Amino acid sequence: MLKPTALRYRPEDCSIARSLEVLGERWTILVLREAFSGVRRFDDIQQNTGAPRQVLSQRLAHLVEHGILRRVPYQEPGQRQRHEYRLTEKGLDLYPVLVGLLHWGDKYLADEGGPSVRLTHKDCGAPVRVTMLCADGHEIGSAREVRPVPLS
Amino acid sequence: MLKPTALRYRPEDCSIARSLEVLGERWTILVLREAFSGVRRFDDIQQNTGAPRQVLSQRLAHLVEHGILRRVPYQEPGQRQRHEYRLTEKGLDLYPVLVGLLHWGDKYLADEGGPSVRLTHKDCGAPVRVTMLCADGHEIGSAREVRPVPLS
Repeated sequence: MLKPTALRYRPEDCSIARSLEVLGERWTILVLREAFSGVRRFDDIQQNTGAPRQVLSQRLAHLVEHGILRRVPYQEPGQRQRHEYRLTEKGLDLYPVLVGLLHWGDKYLADEGGPSVRLTHKDCGAPVRVTMLCADGHEIGSAREVRPVPLS
Repeated sequence: MLKPTALRYRPEDCSIARSLEVLGERWTILVLREAFSGVRRFDDIQQNTGAPRQVLSQRLAHLVEHGILRRVPYQEPGQRQRHEYRLTEKGLDLYPVLVGLLHWGDKYLADEGGPSVRLTHKDCGAPVRVTMLCADGHEIGSAREVRPVPLS
């Protein structure tokens, strides 16, 4: 395991804590799940997540405010203009976190029927997994192979 | 972007939602951050996270109950026996999620001083990043290269 002495950074500077301040609410992550699935419209997101409408409005506004989603106008024939929600680059960069949660849940929490979705590489069709690589190209099999180096 | 039609799985079966039911609370992730940093004892975890003691007790019990941490007895000379908390394999498997949150926060939320910690490969010292690979060995650069295939 990693040594306690590795924790000489200031916990209040921790990027995990900061990320959680932005994302650390269950509905927020579920809204992002919808966005990554291409579900962009309020009513569809509401239906798929089951979030109360007011909560969903707040979460969407929060994600727009933090630059994770952007509002894009659209108009159906005969309807008033509405907005849909699309991931920004900042939002798209959260994909490995969501896939990590997905695969951990698939491994430990799926019911007898197994996982409900498989992620595949569009180009070749092979299944996709989250992993870690070092800059020298070695794949990292576990946390035990990683050393945190304090920078401050 | 991914197509809406890709979302033909049942959202209630979603492994992300299930993972969040277990993990979806800010203190829980911060406790795991400590565990991955080798901080295993109640008082040290309490000091580093700032979690109220009663909340921390509940979160630790929750993580033990879900098999993510395990309690291991220890005894300092002249003191009563206490327990420390160590990651199980199920807990260790959450590492990419935490590293994903760390690096996203480093990229988008760090202050002027930059990130407070760098993760390096123990064997070679090179910096470590989270990424996605397909089973044919292609690295996946973005969510746009992934196709979700419903299994149910």
